[in-house]
Amino acid sequence: MFKPIKSKKIYESVIEEVQQMIIEGTLSKGDKLPTERDLAEQLNVSRTSVREAMRALEVLGIVQVKQGGGNFIKEQFDDALVEPLSMMFILNQSHPREIVELRRIIEVESVYRAAERISDEDIKELRVIIDQLNIHTKSRNEIKSAEYDKEFHYSICRIADNYLFSNILNMVSNLMDVLIKDARGTILLKEHNRDVLIEQHEKIFRALAARNPQGAADAMKEHIELIFDEYVSSIEERKPSV
Amino acid sequence: MFKPIKSKKIYESVIEEVQQMIIEGTLSKGDKLPTERDLAEQLNVSRTSVREAMRALEVLGIVQVKQGGGNFIKEQFDDALVEPLSMMFILNQSHPREIVELRRIIEVESVYRAAERISDEDIKELRVIIDQLNIHTKSRNEIKSAEYDKEFHYSICRIADNYLFSNILNMVSNLMDVLIKDARGTILLKEHNRDVLIEQHEKIFRALAARNPQGAADAMKEHIELIFDEYVSSIEERKPSV
Repeated sequence: MFKPIKSKKIYESVIEEVQQMIIEGTLSKGDKLPTERDLAEQLNVSRTSVREAMRALEVLGIVQVKQGGGNFIKEQFDDALVEPLSMMFILNQSHPREIVELRRIIEVESVYRAAERISDEDIKELRVIIDQLNIHTKSRNEIKSAEYDKEFHYSICRIADNYLFSNILNMVSNLMDVLIKDARGTILLKEHNRDVLIEQHEKIFRALAARNPQGAADAMKEHIELIFDEYVSSIEERKPSV
Repeated sequence: MFKPIKSKKIYESVIEEVQQMIIEGTLSKGDKLPTERDLAEQLNVSRTSVREAMRALEVLGIVQVKQGGGNFIKEQFDDALVEPLSMMFILNQSHPREIVELRRIIEVESVYRAAERISDEDIKELRVIIDQLNIHTKSRNEIKSAEYDKEFHYSICRIADNYLFSNILNMVSNLMDVLIKDARGTILLKEHNRDVLIEQHEKIFRALAARNPQGAADAMKEHIELIFDEYVSSIEERKPSV
């Protein structure tokens, strides 16, 4: 609760200034930031410090640095260069169980809300994705299958209209790529699971298309339960390294 | 699903190198990174680019830069200078509903797991926190109350042993500060809610101390339902800005 006081570095005060402008609403999505020269003069710091701060905000996926064209607050936050959550997951030697638990809590809630607010257009788009997913699952193209599997789940979260949930999923996108690939690989070691996977995705889709929140949540739970039973429990829990 | 190809900046390749070393396990928590000079030579880039990369990793809370002492992978990830999730939340003009939904999904699951694995020591520590919370709630010290309220909820998440959940809560720590303060303020406008809040926290604690997962989850749901009923629904939903 009580954070140690540490000496502040110069570039940090630049970041805090930008952060403050965002909190106050002076800066919104798509806005151009003051030039590096202006920021440096205004805050009485070197341009190097300003540039370091911009680099950091760029890596975080908050700011877009256009070569020769200035710095902008991004419109979309879906392609941070670094995913700190993914890195922390690896550094903590976390068990895949944790990422599947994260999926369960976010996706069960999301699919419920998605079923409440899904549009006809959304249903059409999901149908296209699930058709592709089924085709590639049947033809054993696991690279494509994993891509469409992820696309299906991420689309549901977008339809649910909780940006925070979507942003969190975007922040563990690399982890999700690995998880979906590995989990599918393990689950499909049993050949009859190929039909099970296809049917589970269809069941989620049908409940969404019928705008049935509880049915969608139940279908999602069942789907993620399969991942727990067939994949998570097959991996030994790592001992904490401490 | 398909990200646009963009020209890579030099400092980005430094970050990717460090990221790769983490993924491969060459770098673990607490490890010292190669010197900036070595990294620059190894990757054939300028030391400025290496320094920019280190700054970015420092801001993300992954690397600790010790003045004159080299760069280290951090041991703890609980004090990132910038919380990208908090900033994205503000930039998206997200509704407080979203952060309360995030609390609900993380905390209901966490308290369930916490009840399964709580130690006697954990119970003692939670009791101290909740005693302080009650004292300050009764004496109307809302600054202290909000601090202990947050400490109570974050402790439960730590006990639950899902680092990913804890890391996510740490990444929205600033948002949580504001939410808890505002929500308590609104809820306590009705004086009888003072006893309700105290009793709800006690109920969560009792279920944890009795190692009753379902009871703890139900008590947490009830508590967060109060926040929805009294706080979230009192704030008009913002129209999407698009």
